[in-house]
Amino acid sequence: MGGGCRVYREVLRYSTSEGFQVLDITSDVESVVARSGVVEGLVNVFARHATAAVVLNEGEPRLMSDIVEAARRLAPPGGGWRHDEIDDNAHAHIGAILYGSGVTVPVSRGRLMRGTWQNVLLVELDGPRPQREVVVTVIGETL
Amino acid sequence: MGGGCRVYREVLRYSTSEGFQVLDITSDVESVVARSGVVEGLVNVFARHATAAVVLNEGEPRLMSDIVEAARRLAPPGGGWRHDEIDDNAHAHIGAILYGSGVTVPVSRGRLMRGTWQNVLLVELDGPRPQREVVVTVIGETL
Amino acid sequence: MGGGCRVYREVLRYSTSEGFQVLDITSDVESVVARSGVVEGLVNVFARHATAAVVLNEGEPRLMSDIVEAARRLAPPGGGWRHDEIDDNAHAHIGAILYGSGVTVPVSRGRLMRGTWQNVLLVELDGPRPQREVVVTVIGETL
Repeated sequence: MGGGCRVYREVLRYSTSEGFQVLDITSDVESVVARSGVVEGLVNVFARHATAAVVLNEGEPRLMSDIVEAARRLAPPGGGWRHDEIDDNAHAHIGAILYGSGVTVPVSRGRLMRGTWQNVLLVELDGPRPQREVVVTVIGETL
Repeated sequence: MGGGCRVYREVLRYSTSEGFQVLDITSDVESVVARSGVVEGLVNVFARHATAAVVLNEGEPRLMSDIVEAARRLAPPGGGWRHDEIDDNAHAHIGAILYGSGVTVPVSRGRLMRGTWQNVLLVELDGPRPQREVVVTVIGETL
Repeated sequence: MGGGCRVYREVLRYSTSEGFQVLDITSDVESVVARSGVVEGLVNVFARHATAAVVLNEGEPRLMSDIVEAARRLAPPGGGWRHDEIDDNAHAHIGAILYGSGVTVPVSRGRLMRGTWQNVLLVELDGPRPQREVVVTVIGETL
């Protein structure tokens, strides 16, 4: 590798229909990487929200419900949080911190260098919401 | 976008006054990004410590106390940790792993592309400390 | 700093011998950064797996056992997860999400700009496995 780097960006938008929900956005992210022209580098996938998260894991429906269940157990709604005095979503803020706002994944040969079971998942923790924004930034070398 | 990328870095320093504490460092990080000259890219905000974390979330005082409370619940001080045999801060190490040492945020038009409630928060888990270092690295395209 | 950026990558491979295990891979990552020729930039260290994690923390043996213990407490094996109906490793998936698939660390003067106690740790949550892959991507400016 060698030569110059470039930055390419797209914003993906999703609506959510439940209070807690996991959406598999892998194919959308892969399409952005393909369009970027970046061959070797990194892609950052970032939720522009304080009550949603982006994680990597298997897009298996039962596991997706476990991801919701784990968030409920670790940061329970109505769990005696002080922020609930002014809003009722402290659990969603804490869950977003635990799961993380974004992930950075290597890109090789123009594709995500992810493991077989590493899908890109958007985790809604305070839905439903008409619009959640996921910023995809690809940085690296072009051909 | 197109052309070359650059790397710009500054180290921010903070003192903490309590065992657990959350500091809102958003404006400092935004100033570094502005000084970097990077227009499109990424900014990495990184705590150079094993017992502090950097997270993104709302800088609301009650939520900031919930962030402390959640760390205490999930990784309780004196919670039967083996590392406490040689030091008394295992909870702070585990909390730092759960919350994460750093975040990577997209930069667009020379500004953090963060959500309305996504402030950059430095989480002290083993204070007080006279100096905590936060490394801010901006990478991307200049004009 | 100024001039062009480059991307350099190596894949590290490890075998694990226990169900839960923490491996200190700091020196391997430092060697990759040294070989990269990147002087100022970022290094991303990424586990290509849904049931393993990469974190930064102290490589002290008792703390490493605490890291395992915390994963067991927060995402207990056999903890009533639905994914266990088809596989018995839901705890490892949830633990990998909580700890995170990867970390991004600043690089300065050709070295990781990590804190004294910030070692790079590969956390096995569903071993033993004959091969775990850790992708190391260095991006930044060369001399």
